[in-house]
Parts: sequence; structure tokens; C-alpha cells
Amino acid sequence: MTDPLRTHIEKIVPLTDAEFEFVRSHFISKRYKKHQFLIQDGEPVPYAFFIVSGLVKLGYADAAGKQHIISFAMEDWWESDFQAFYTQTRATLTLDCLEDTEVLCLPFANYQQLRTDLRKMEHFFLEKSNGGHIAAQRRILSLLTTNAKERYEQVVQQFPTLMQRVPKTLLAAYLGVSRETLSRFTS
Amino acid sequence: MTDPLRTHIEKIVPLTDAEFEFVRSHFISKRYKKHQFLIQDGEPVPYAFFIVSGLVKLGYADAAGKQHIISFAMEDWWESDFQAFYTQTRATLTLDCLEDTEVLCLPFANYQQLRTDLRKMEHFFLEKSNGGHIAAQRRILSLLTTNAKERYEQVVQQFPTLMQRVPKTLLAAYLGVSRETLSRFTS
Repeated sequence: MTDPLRTHIEKIVPLTDAEFEFVRSHFISKRYKKHQFLIQDGEPVPYAFFIVSGLVKLGYADAAGKQHIISFAMEDWWESDFQAFYTQTRATLTLDCLEDTEVLCLPFANYQQLRTDLRKMEHFFLEKSNGGHIAAQRRILSLLTTNAKERYEQVVQQFPTLMQRVPKTLLAAYLGVSRETLSRFTS
Repeated sequence: MTDPLRTHIEKIVPLTDAEFEFVRSHFISKRYKKHQFLIQDGEPVPYAFFIVSGLVKLGYADAAGKQHIISFAMEDWWESDFQAFYTQTRATLTLDCLEDTEVLCLPFANYQQLRTDLRKMEHFFLEKSNGGHIAAQRRILSLLTTNAKERYEQVVQQFPTLMQRVPKTLLAAYLGVSRETLSRFTS
């Protein structure tokens, strides 16, 4: 079986075996149990995470302690508190596991080193960053222009597998509606 | 006076005179009058725009014809319908001028060529894209966790110059409140 990270990168740039070994050597493999935290609010953010298997949620607790869900991410996706990661400041977000999760952790220094040492990886990261930027702009547009029922229909259409795995209570929180309101959308 | 594009790029990567001349040769200079469109919904998006002077707004008209404002941008910022630009599909957004505006237009083929021909520019674009991704995530968080008055205070703090130049009616639309509600924040 091909390494999931290699398959993921080679959707954008082909790598030789030697190049992939070099890339892979910059990552640290870790496993987390359901409910464990990958990033905690107020702590340093040493890694960007490539998710090999499992499901995580990126969240934010406001001044009143209310939890907001920014995004969910599962296998073949990248996730982090990217502001804290890129600027190497402390997390304002939390990242925790909704399932047992296996990740490849990319330390910030290794991220920079990979970009310098292997031009293909700078190209790869720019393509991924542009994709992330586009996805974030779509989410802004969705928040500005749709109601919760329309957002529900959008996410089910865009991410059918993901939505089956996310507990309904969290899906309701993501959409900004009550669990009861969500039931009306799905019935 | 140093070229504004050069000053902008050199905040991230230093360029020799020859390199800057090479970079600059990939751009086309254009001037637009207040109210003119740089991007129209449904049309191709040949360019990403570096704004030399002036002020533009990126907007979206929903199915009911209601106008939503995604962002404002002024000198030293980049703007486009980035989804349409990066994927070379038709615009779903509009970009129009709130002031007479001078831009440097980067055609998509030139964007790709610059990345290939000058490694410093791939590095520069990745830094800018990461910055854009972070800004978009902050906007999502702001939309999820703050009310209109808090958003008003955030944008005034983050972009004081910009907010003085944006007409109050459009600022109200950006915040998703009526003109009357906005008056209460500012008084």
C-alpha cells in the first residue's frame, strides 16, 4: 500500500522514492485517542498535522466560555491553528479528537526546511495554501449569505462522509442551531 | 521613489534590480474610475490585482439579488475572486471601485510562470497565501463569535485608515446591520 502522505502529495507533485523518504523524515508519527487534545488554547503550536486516519475538530471558546466549531477534518486533510503555527505564537484555538486519530506532525522548523531544501514542496505547500484560502473564503460567503438549513445542505453535499461521522450535537453547534432544529433539517 | 510593488515584495524577499524588472514585466498596469468593475459575476477572471492606489470592494449577490460584502481592499493589498482565478473558472463574485483605483494586474499564466522562473516569488506567494488564509480564518471566527458591534470595533482597530474611507452605508452592509444601527455604534 502506498503511504497516504505520498499519495496526498503526489496529487500535486510527483516525487521520486528518495524525495519521498526525505520528505517523510521531516514528520513525526503520533496517535491520539478519542477526546485527546492535539492543540490546547494558550499553549504553543509546534506542529501542522496531516491526518492519516480519524476525525478532529477545530474549536474556539469565546470570552463567555461558549464553544464554537470552526471546522472538522479527517484523513487526507491538514489541520492546525494555522495563525499560531505560521507565526509561532500561542494557540487561540483547540484541536481535539472525535475518533481515535493517527497523524503525521510537521514541526515548524521542518516545514521551513522542507520548503528551502525541496522546491517541489514549496510548490506543493503553495497549492495547498491556495486551496485552504479558497475553502475559507467559501465558508465566509456561506456564513454571510445562507441560513442554517442551507448551510446544512451545503456541507452534506460537499462532505457526505464527514457528515455521517460527526455527532449530531456537534454538527448542530457547527451550523449554529439547536439539536432540535437540526432534527427538522434531517427528517 | 521605490516602486510600491517592489516595496511590498521586499517586505518578504529581497530582490536585485534585475529580478524586480523581471517580476514587474509580468504585470500589466491599469487604471479604473470609481464605480467601474474589475471583476463581474459570471465573467472570466484573468487577473489577480495588486492595488497601487485606491479602494475596491469584493461582493456577492445572492439568489434573491441581495448584495453581500466579503471584503474591502486598498493600496498594498491583493484582491481577486481567488477561487475563480486559481481554478480559472468564471467569477461568482464582483470586484468594483469605491475610489479611482490604480492596479497592477497579474495574468494567471504569468503567475504560474513567475513561480516557476523565480524561486523567490514562489516563496513570496506562499507567504502571502498563508497570510490570506489566516486572515480568512480570523474573519470566520469573527462571524461565528461576535455580534455586529464587536465586529465594528474589531475592524476599526485592525484597519483604521480603511474604515475612514469606506462609505457608512457599505460599512453597515459589511457588518450586516442597518445604517441606523451603525450610527449607534459610532456615536
